[in-house]
Amino acid sequence: MLRALAMASVALGPQAAGWARTMASHQLLVAPPEALRKPLSIPNRLLLGPGPANLAPRVLAAGGLQVIGHMHKEMYQIMDEIKQGIQYVFQTRNPLTLAISGSGHCALEAALFNLLEPGDSFLVGVNGIWGQRAADIGERIGARVHMMVKDPGGHHTLREVEEGLAQHKPVLLFLTQGESSSGVLQPLNGYGELCHRYKCLLLVDSVASLGAVPIYMDQQGIDVLYSGSQKVLNAPPGTSLLSFSDKAKNKIYTRKTKPFSFYLDIKWLANFWGCDDQPRMYHHTTPITGLYSLRESLALIAEQGLEDSWRQHRETMAYLHGRLQGLGLRLFVKDPALRLPTITTVAVPAGYNWRDITNYVMDHFDIEITGGLGPSMGKAILSGLD
Amino acid sequence: MLRALAMASVALGPQAAGWARTMASHQLLVAPPEALRKPLSIPNRLLLGPGPANLAPRVLAAGGLQVIGHMHKEMYQIMDEIKQGIQYVFQTRNPLTLAISGSGHCALEAALFNLLEPGDSFLVGVNGIWGQRAADIGERIGARVHMMVKDPGGHHTLREVEEGLAQHKPVLLFLTQGESSSGVLQPLNGYGELCHRYKCLLLVDSVASLGAVPIYMDQQGIDVLYSGSQKVLNAPPGTSLLSFSDKAKNKIYTRKTKPFSFYLDIKWLANFWGCDDQPRMYHHTTPITGLYSLRESLALIAEQGLEDSWRQHRETMAYLHGRLQGLGLRLFVKDPALRLPTITTVAVPAGYNWRDITNYVMDHFDIEITGGLGPSMGKAILSGLD
Ligand SMILES: Cc1ncc(COP(=O)(O)O)c(C=O)c1O
Ligand SMILES: Cc1ncc(COP(=O)(O)O)c(C=O)c1O
Repeated sequence: MLRALAMASVALGPQAAGWARTMASHQLLVAPPEALRKPLSIPNRLLLGPGPANLAPRVLAAGGLQVIGHMHKEMYQIMDEIKQGIQYVFQTRNPLTLAISGSGHCALEAALFNLLEPGDSFLVGVNGIWGQRAADIGERIGARVHMMVKDPGGHHTLREVEEGLAQHKPVLLFLTQGESSSGVLQPLNGYGELCHRYKCLLLVDSVASLGAVPIYMDQQGIDVLYSGSQKVLNAPPGTSLLSFSDKAKNKIYTRKTKPFSFYLDIKWLANFWGCDDQPRMYHHTTPITGLYSLRESLALIAEQGLEDSWRQHRETMAYLHGRLQGLGLRLFVKDPALRLPTITTVAVPAGYNWRDITNYVMDHFDIEITGGLGPSMGKAILSGLD
Repeated sequence: MLRALAMASVALGPQAAGWARTMASHQLLVAPPEALRKPLSIPNRLLLGPGPANLAPRVLAAGGLQVIGHMHKEMYQIMDEIKQGIQYVFQTRNPLTLAISGSGHCALEAALFNLLEPGDSFLVGVNGIWGQRAADIGERIGARVHMMVKDPGGHHTLREVEEGLAQHKPVLLFLTQGESSSGVLQPLNGYGELCHRYKCLLLVDSVASLGAVPIYMDQQGIDVLYSGSQKVLNAPPGTSLLSFSDKAKNKIYTRKTKPFSFYLDIKWLANFWGCDDQPRMYHHTTPITGLYSLRESLALIAEQGLEDSWRQHRETMAYLHGRLQGLGLRLFVKDPALRLPTITTVAVPAGYNWRDITNYVMDHFDIEITGGLGPSMGKAILSGLD
């Protein structure tokens, strides 16, 4: 021990004596793990579950590029392009539009952390797992959470929402456009106007639907919209898309308390994403390569055009539904108008365990389809994105 | 309008009439952005700032691999390997060890959200920007935050910490091992024991120091340790490393309130990372390709060996410091024993503006070095990771 100390001190010069002491009085007790000696090997899978989806070649290539600084001007340029791409896919002119450095849940938290203050009334449409998650987060924040609960497969009508608005006078309503756990497409026409009549803001989750189903943030009066990178956009998980209307922004900028999270504090993020007139200040290190990929995925959908992407998903859905029904399978969502094109839910045929079916497809074809999630667990098989 | 509606309805069949109505009554008002038509072009930069650092070739390659599902067994295997890699670089046997799906700040929030409850006394060593950030987050959570403030370049002695512990009886102490804004290396020997004598947990930020400077989480009695992917590990930003001692785990599992964040709720994350005995449940979609890269970066340092990595950084520092001083430049941190090998801070020479210097190096050599950050802004030039 003493010898090691002495030797280390000599090698280091007197300046690093403290460091040498640290090394001399401790030992490496945890060895390099054996498992890390093996090369990384990733199987080739066709991902047809509810997400993530396979990456497009151009997106894949972007993810393998070298890192530059998160505050280099070229990075700011990429961020500006991402902002414009999000404005396009959301069909919004909101200046307060940005990508979040985290998954879909992180974007949901960013929305709720910034919009809700403790004690605020929060109305949540629950018809699967995502409403449950929004309600859970709302409760953590100390909002007064009111759930409108539908069975999986159901959706929320304008009339039901109006009752909830009248009864609970919420500051915010949460709806999921594409309920990926049940395969339901929630209609959105008229909900924004209705909310505004009751002085309520409308927050919509489009993680599983964006790019496949029409959405017009501004025209539909949606105040806060978020989506994920890893679904229709075919980008890797790790970033998400988020935009706020001026009304929503106003609620954020006039709140009395700071949001609990610094990482997701919209005032900081707005500055870093160039959404205010101030010079950009370091906030956190953004996922550089994830943003490269996100930029490319937005470029791809901008090239294709939203309407063409919607058409493509609609036609694929029609074909798939036809073939499934031709096989005698029953679709989980009864009303054809409410079926989500990205995620098709098939009622588990009587006498079968869903796990046997999804395992079979994975083991024989390296194709992912999955069972239900949350309330639809065991009731439906999900097959979706590609 | 009506014609479009009729045509769309025919094309869709009656089932998608709602969808057709949506399209017929709205228009694409936001055009595909011009800027996204240009190909993505990333300059070749040598990143010698305080982070992110350039990616190692093997890490780069991993980031360009195709995505598999976040709940596929191969992904669980990669996560297990990452856990073991973190245990190695942290020198810990803590079962509650995992990667966070976010940057260094996100890991800091994960630590504070889970460890602190409103009203808890939280002692923060501030000698640069990171202590300020920890204090900011602590205040958002409603902890009683007590700051021990040192000028940039200073560190916290055992005696000072003991005074703080005796006076404020905190449940948690925050220290930064590598204060990247000032270039200070905070000694850690004895701090864990001292904290435990005062029934306080020790939380250490090693974002800018891990892999370059000795740290022995278990032997040094550190209860919570986090680090980033994008510094010495040379992985892309977007994931971070986090581990909790049994004492820290116990505080989390006996808390009275739920943490404000669901995304960062350690009980959920512990389950998803296989740190409890329960079957893994979907929590959020992890940054799959970011985890590939993180796995490879941990494999690289495991191959090299921690002690060799420490030696390499120490020798590089000694060489760089010698050459800088040979040029007549003054190092910002006076005590050589307290200089951080990853980040060398040079006092801005009289008569120069730091921005001119960093811009010159960037414009002529495509090399990044940066100015100070937070309290050291304008006082020091940072040159660091490679
Ligand atoms: C509709 C919907 N909302 C939210 C999420 C959550 O996103 P993430 O898993 O990226 O956190 C998902 C993920 O599948 C989803 O389908
Ligand atoms: C010591 C230290 N702590 C925390 C952070 C924050 O990490 P991030 O920027 O990844 O959020 C940094 C980033 O430079 C750092 O150097």
